[in-house]
Parts: sequence; structure tokens; C-alpha cells
Amino acid sequence: MISSNKSQYKLAELIIGLDATIKGDPNCLISGVCPIQQSQPGHITFLTNPLYRKYLPITQASAVILTEAEAVECTTNAVISRNPYYTYAKIATFFEEQSETFAGIHTTAAIGMDCQIHPTAVIGPNVVIGCQVKIGANVIIGAGSSIADYVEIDENSQLDANVTIYHKVKIGKRTCIASGAVIGSDGFGFANQKGVWHKVPQLGSVVVGDDVDIGANTTIDRGAVENTVIENGVKLDNLIQVGHNVKIGTNTIIAGCVAIAGSTVIGKNCMIGGATCFAGHITIGDNVMITGMTAVTKSIHEPGIYSSGIVGAVPNQEFRKNNARFHRLENLMQRVKTLEIALKEFSNRSASFESTPNVGCEAGLDENAQE
Amino acid sequence: MISSNKSQYKLAELIIGLDATIKGDPNCLISGVCPIQQSQPGHITFLTNPLYRKYLPITQASAVILTEAEAVECTTNAVISRNPYYTYAKIATFFEEQSETFAGIHTTAAIGMDCQIHPTAVIGPNVVIGCQVKIGANVIIGAGSSIADYVEIDENSQLDANVTIYHKVKIGKRTCIASGAVIGSDGFGFANQKGVWHKVPQLGSVVVGDDVDIGANTTIDRGAVENTVIENGVKLDNLIQVGHNVKIGTNTIIAGCVAIAGSTVIGKNCMIGGATCFAGHITIGDNVMITGMTAVTKSIHEPGIYSSGIVGAVPNQEFRKNNARFHRLENLMQRVKTLEIALKEFSNRSASFESTPNVGCEAGLDENAQE
Amino acid sequence: MISSNKSQYKLAELIIGLDATIKGDPNCLISGVCPIQQSQPGHITFLTNPLYRKYLPITQASAVILTEAEAVECTTNAVISRNPYYTYAKIATFFEEQSETFAGIHTTAAIGMDCQIHPTAVIGPNVVIGCQVKIGANVIIGAGSSIADYVEIDENSQLDANVTIYHKVKIGKRTCIASGAVIGSDGFGFANQKGVWHKVPQLGSVVVGDDVDIGANTTIDRGAVENTVIENGVKLDNLIQVGHNVKIGTNTIIAGCVAIAGSTVIGKNCMIGGATCFAGHITIGDNVMITGMTAVTKSIHEPGIYSSGIVGAVPNQEFRKNNARFHRLENLMQRVKTLEIALKEFSNRSASFESTPNVGCEAGLDENAQE
Repeated sequence: MISSNKSQYKLAELIIGLDATIKGDPNCLISGVCPIQQSQPGHITFLTNPLYRKYLPITQASAVILTEAEAVECTTNAVISRNPYYTYAKIATFFEEQSETFAGIHTTAAIGMDCQIHPTAVIGPNVVIGCQVKIGANVIIGAGSSIADYVEIDENSQLDANVTIYHKVKIGKRTCIASGAVIGSDGFGFANQKGVWHKVPQLGSVVVGDDVDIGANTTIDRGAVENTVIENGVKLDNLIQVGHNVKIGTNTIIAGCVAIAGSTVIGKNCMIGGATCFAGHITIGDNVMITGMTAVTKSIHEPGIYSSGIVGAVPNQEFRKNNARFHRLENLMQRVKTLEIALKEFSNRSASFESTPNVGCEAGLDENAQE
Repeated sequence: MISSNKSQYKLAELIIGLDATIKGDPNCLISGVCPIQQSQPGHITFLTNPLYRKYLPITQASAVILTEAEAVECTTNAVISRNPYYTYAKIATFFEEQSETFAGIHTTAAIGMDCQIHPTAVIGPNVVIGCQVKIGANVIIGAGSSIADYVEIDENSQLDANVTIYHKVKIGKRTCIASGAVIGSDGFGFANQKGVWHKVPQLGSVVVGDDVDIGANTTIDRGAVENTVIENGVKLDNLIQVGHNVKIGTNTIIAGCVAIAGSTVIGKNCMIGGATCFAGHITIGDNVMITGMTAVTKSIHEPGIYSSGIVGAVPNQEFRKNNARFHRLENLMQRVKTLEIALKEFSNRSASFESTPNVGCEAGLDENAQE
Repeated sequence: MISSNKSQYKLAELIIGLDATIKGDPNCLISGVCPIQQSQPGHITFLTNPLYRKYLPITQASAVILTEAEAVECTTNAVISRNPYYTYAKIATFFEEQSETFAGIHTTAAIGMDCQIHPTAVIGPNVVIGCQVKIGANVIIGAGSSIADYVEIDENSQLDANVTIYHKVKIGKRTCIASGAVIGSDGFGFANQKGVWHKVPQLGSVVVGDDVDIGANTTIDRGAVENTVIENGVKLDNLIQVGHNVKIGTNTIIAGCVAIAGSTVIGKNCMIGGATCFAGHITIGDNVMITGMTAVTKSIHEPGIYSSGIVGAVPNQEFRKNNARFHRLENLMQRVKTLEIALKEFSNRSASFESTPNVGCEAGLDENAQE
């Protein structure tokens, strides 16, 4: 059952402990959050995207969270912050509805032998827990989830309904796993002998750190020999595939539908756009940003923003022409080379050769080209 | 338990209420459906794809659903329709096997407090339902599904086994949700403060309209402030990711593995090909068709067919050359410019300049080029 | 509960029945497996990737599985094999931990009428099984899985936790299905009548052969009229979408996040890279390898390696230039044609025409170009 929080707060109450100041009435009452263009009196909103600046003079909100620079244009109460989105994130927690949960093991849950389940943990209906499982303080296991033998889940973590955790997986503190996620399934390893694929035992496990978020229906395979590792503070969106032996560094954030092939290592503080794919056995350094739908086939050692693919939908007829041209790019290149040689010969025979603009020969130009 | 329908029907019975006519024997007995090339006597089949026209003269089927124009070549009983595939869809329902279900709550289901569950609803084994949930008439909830607090599911909707619905999600009438789908998981919103990602509370919900289909293992996140909205008649295939705040318009159909980033709006009557990705915060108008594996990065306002990417698998060696050339396209462009300038200079010095074909300079040509 | 195997084995014990020979001490004791660069005394490791050859002279492993040629450099005990990875796969099974399972039906499982469940089968907690289901000898059904009416699962197959099998699906012997997989959901078939999509009944089923592996959260739709077919020995990774009527041939292996649209046929012994997409209604022959993230839009009849797309992430600024150039490829082509014509005219007027290098005209060059 969801319990409503207090229905309204003074603006000053909302910023306690935050690095923010109020310009206006600290006693103004706030009863909810709303996008800036739809806010009504009683709402608090925020401004971070310049596209929405036009709504600032006309918003009906009782308060707006924004930077000092933006506050000049604010005609209502302002909450001034150097990081308005972070300040919003913290203030919004006041308006979250909390599901009421009751510590203990639901009568329909099936619990194996020799488990250590903290008395403050919540084990939901129809949960299945194997043997020798350790569940820490305040952990919540959602309805229908399955936790196999020897799993350890540290304090304050939460698994939503219908999550599956395979044997021996370790999950840190304050980690949240959304419904349908599967952690610790066998890595995809097969050896071919005379045309037939033979399974390679997957002897490693998965170790998930503290403060990790794992999205709905995301899958993380167990390691072949060593563990697959998701470090502290990693945020994974929905429908992501993490292959065996992958390591994802601290505070890296990965959007939905990304595929990471086996044994690839991604550094710390990376940002990976949606539907990007990583080949196996490559290494991505720290502080790398990769835009969506990129095919990452080689290691990246320097921080920066990286991309591949052809993005930007265009009318299909135009696309078909360009697509066809792409498939003849080699041919186009050869035609340009032929032109260059022809023009060079003309130049050589021309009296005014010295004044002819330089027509590059391939060798020279290609020195700077990257393959 | 699946109950078999009546084993055979007269052809005339099958078209009652449909805008179709019979050319041939209305009393012909039909016992099943089959693809045209494999049909046997007793089967009804259909012809919509011209690739299969060659089978029409030789099919063994007892009846073929087709257009009046195609019927000329039909040597067996014809069911003539302006929309043969639709007519087939309706006729095929006669040959569907129906699972026998019994109204009521299975003894193994766990039901929370203060729910309103219609007596005609079917709540399957090991279903878990939270508090204050409303379940309408004739709703079927499949085995192992989890329905959280305050969810509303309107009449005649069906959830297959192992579906997860988060708190406060609303689902309309006659909507079908396949196994493993997750509706209402938290949107992917994090604010970065000093290198650490902080969760932004996701205070909205998901509203799913009437006559919607949602495929297996598809995920639909709840909104950050407002709701994520799936309008009436939307059809979503398997393994689709719908980000928070997304809106999908009436009768839009989306194939498998599509990723839709947060806050993007897709119009009505759109058709989206498989594995296409949408950037966040963009708007797609009504009646837009997007081919498969497209990266849609900007808003599309005009109806039409849109595409991106490089499609069409070619031998890897050829692909590698073209891929390498692509990564030097800028270089190729510069070489062409150099050639143009060189040739222009030759022209200028040539006596016969006036008759020289025009060699475009970049500025002029680029006026028509689109970025 | 997981039972540990014997803690250590003599090297000679490990290769019984394998086509491998020992160079060194057959009585050397082995207690586990480890990657070559981290191995310690007591470990057995393997060498198949030349990148790891540098670790061979310095590994601390007690034994290394490798080819005869590589064995020359081996300073510890060698297990010589013509297929070291296969030999490793078999040896590693000695070090797998086995979950202890007890034959029989868990008290929390819900079983329908008229099922034939072999007494050696293991039906886990909270499993739901429909009516008229057949479960063979030694089959294991993991916790929370749902098996609908008329399903048949042959001997020695294993379903992990939270798997969903729809009605009438047939699964062969020794087949393994990972958590979250959904087999037999309705295919994505809708007929449009006056702007509204009407469901086309999906009357076929799914037939999965022997020795198949199906990864976590993979979805396989049932056929529209006939069955979707996964032949013997097929290996499917996680988060794969298999559309209705698809057929996948014997021993084909498919990496994660691949999307296969309806009615496509993939041959035997194919290898498909991750995140590749197949259009519907196409045919891929036997022994075809397709690299990752390819968009396969047409049938492929010849064995070989095929690719599409632009792969290889580059700095975003460079990417943006090339992406923009791509969208003007047609324009670039026209400019090259203009240059060719201009140069041709110069040539024609030149006294030294015969010695001028040939400037291709489009018609000639295009004869060899493929669209």
C-alpha cells in the first residue's frame, strides 16, 4: 500500500541541507512538482534546458529552481542553485509516494536452507530464495523474484517484482534492480568441435557494487572464469545486455538497449548513449562519452566524445540514393584518383604548370587520412 | 485447458458480417487455414503478396481469400474482399483454440487490501496483486504476474504469464500484454553532482489506452513528472524500450527491438520498423513511416517514409573498403574541391572557355545540399 | 543447494576420453581453472588467442591446454590438443558446481489436469503448469516458471527461473532456456482496416529442437499459421527477438540483441554477430557469417562473411563531418561526373589525346558497380 507523504511543505523546509538559497518567500507553500509550462500555484518546478527559458516569465509555479544567472528573469519565488537539476532531484523526493512494506517473509515465499535473512528485510509474496543466501538489513525483495543459492544482497538494496538472481551473485548496498532483470545467467561461451557447439562452463559469477541501478529486463551474464563486475554507482537503463567477464567502472551511466559483448572493459565516469554496441575484448578508458547507436569495434584510450554510424532520418528516396552511393564509395574513390592523375598529366604538359593549383596525389593525402 | 472449436464450417458461415462475397460453393466445408503453397482440401488460404501469386493456379485449398482482380486466376472457391488480409484475420479467429479459463481468484494468488476485482475476472496461479487495485470485467491475469498498488485494469484486457505492472499504472479495455513485459518501472533520470549520479524521483505513471497490444519483454517506463502515454490502438512488438514521458499516438504500430528515448512524442498512425532508435525530446508527426534500424535524431513534421543508416549486407571485404572510405569522406570531398578549382583555372586560361562544361564550385552546389 | 565437486584431480583424470595428450607430469594435481595471466600453482589454463601467447613462458599454472605447435614454448605441464578450447570446455566441467536438486514437484507449484510429469523431473517452487503438459525424464523447471497447456518438454532439458512457455510449444532434449525467456508469445500480425489494426490470429506454435540454448530474456514468437522452428544445436544469446514463422537451421549460433523479423529463414552452421537485424521474408543460406550490427535486408545465398553499417567509433567532430558528407553523397557523385565530362572535353580538344589517361565515363564504370 502506498502512503501519501505530508501534503505540503514550506519552501524553506524543502532546501534544508541543500546548497541552495531562496529569493522570495521562504514560507511559500509547495504541494507538488510540475513541468514549467504546466505549473500551477502550489507547484515547484525547475529550469535547466534553455529551450524552456521562454516559459520562465509566464509560469504559474509558486517557485522555480534555477541558477543565479537565470533568476534575473524569474518573476516568482526562486530557489537558486549551482546545480538546479540535482536540487530538483532532492526536493522531488518529498513528493514521492512510498509503498508501505512490512518487514518479514511473506507466507507464500519459499525459503531454502541455511539462509541469513535480516529481520528488517522484506521478502514479498511468491519470492523463491535458495540455500545459504544472505539478505541484509532493510533489503526489499519484490513479488515473484527468484534468488538462487549462495547469493548475497547487502543492506538497503531493493529488487522489484519478478527479478532473477542466479547462484553466487553478490549485490552491494543501496542497489536497485528493476523488474525482469536477470543477473548471473550463463555467459555465451561455446567451443566448436566438428561443427557442433559445446557449452563452455561458466564458472565465474557477477559482482554488483553499491548504489548501482539496473533497469527492467536488463541481462548481466556471469563470467566464464572470473566475475563480471559492475562497480559502485553504475547506472544501467532497460534492456541492456552485459556479456560475460565485462567490467563497468564506477559512476558510468549507460542508456537503454546497449549491447556489451564479452570481456570488454568500460572505464569510470563514462556516458554511453542508447542502442550502442561494443565488440568483445576491447577496453574503453575513463571519461569517454559515446553517442547513441554507435558500433564500438576498437578500444578507446582518450577521454572525449565518440560516434559512428549514419544518423539522422531523411526521406527514404534520398536515403536509398545515398545508401547505393555508399556501396560504391570505393568506385567513386577510384574515379577521383583517375581524375587526379589525368589532371596532373595535363599540368605537366602545360606551360603554366607552376601556377597550377596543386592536385593531390593519393600517397600524400592519405598520410593524414585515418583508416 | 484449451478447448477446440467446432471442427469445420461452411464457407458461407465464415464470412457472416464481413464485407466479402463468395464466388463458388458457399457450402464448401472448411476445417482450417494454411499458407497457399501448402494448402490441402478443407483449407482456406489468402493471397495478398504478389510473390505468392504463382501458387494460385495450383493451390489445393478449398477456398482462397483475394481481391476481385486476383480472383480471375482462381480455380477454386474464392472469397472476394477489398482487404483480403483483414478478411483472413477475421476468418482465422474461427480456428483459434481458446484456453479454458475459470472466473475467480486462484488459491495460490496473493491479493492485497481494498481491491475491486470483478467476479468475472480470472486471476491465475501465483499472481500477486497489491492494495487498492481495480480489475474490470473479464480481465485475465496470467500466472505469476505481479500487479502493484493502485493499478487499474479495465474490462476485457488480458495479461499473459509473468507480466509486471508497477504501482498506479492504468490500462484500458481490450488491451493485451505479453509475458515478461514490464510497465511502469522508474524512468532513467539521474542528476550528476560532483561526479556521482543521484536518482531523480519518477513521480509520473504510465497510462495505456484501449485496444493496445504490448509484446513480450517490452518495457515502458513511468514518467518523471507527468505520465508516459500509450494511446488507443497502439501495437508494440517484443523487446521495445519506451522511455519516460514518451507519448505514442493512436493506431501507431512499432516493430520489435525499437528504442524510444525519454520525452519523445510519436504521432498517430505511424509505422516504425524494427530496431529503429529515437533520440529523446523529439517529435514525430502523424502518418510517418520509418524503416528498420534507422537512427532518428531530429523531429519529423511531414508525413512520409524516412530512413537512415547503411543497409544491405555485402561481402565483408567490400564492406571494409567502403567503411574505410566513409571514414575519409571529408578527405575525398577536399580532393574533389581541389580538382574543381584546378579545372576551373585551366578553363579560365583556355581559349575555348565558353564551351567548357560548368564545373561547380562548392558554394553554389551546397546551397541545395542538406546537412 | 550447490554441492562442491571433488576438490582436485590428477591431470590424467581430466583428459580421459578426450583426444588430448599430456607432455609433463600426468599425476600433477589440478584444483581449478584460471586465465593464463592470473593462474597460480594448482590451476589449469588454456591458450587459444595469440594475444595471450606472451603469458605462456611466465604463467604460474600447473598445466596449459594448447596445440602441439604452441607447446614448444610451454615451460609447465602441457595438455596437447588439436582443439584446445573444446578440450578446455570439457575439462572445466570438472570444476562446475552443481545445484542439488530433488526430483519431484515442489509443494508450492500449481499443476493443471492430465499432465504427464516424469518422476525424475524437478518442478521448482511456484512453478505453474497448465493442462495436458508432458515433462520428460530429468527435466528441471526453475522457480516461478510458467508452462501453459499442451506444452511438451523432452528429457534432460532445463528451464531456469522465471521462464515463460506458451501453449503447445514443443521443446526437445538437453535444451537449456535461461531466465526471462519467453517462448511462444503471439507473432506480431495485424491487418489494417480503415486505419485500425486488427489482430491476425497466430495459429502456429514454436518447435525447439534438441541441444538448443536460449539466452536470458530472449523472445521467440509462435507462427501465424505454421510453426516457428529452432533446429537442433542452435545457440541463442540474450535479448534476441525471433519473429513468427522464422526458421533457424542446425548448429547456427546467434549473439545477443539480434532481431529477426517474421518469416525469415536462416540456414545451418551460420554465425550471427550481436545486434544484427534481419528484415522479414528473406532467406540466409548455410555457413553464412554476419558481423555485428549489420542490417540484412536481402537474401544471402552464398557462404561467406557479410557486413553492413558504419563501424568504428571516431571522435564525434570527425563523425559529424563524415555523417554530413554521407547525406550529400549523391551531390558529391554529381560533382565527380561533372569533372569527368569537363576533363573529357579538354582531352578531346587536346593534341595529345591518345596519351591522356582514361577518364571513366559513368556507364562503363557502373557496369561493375553493385547497387
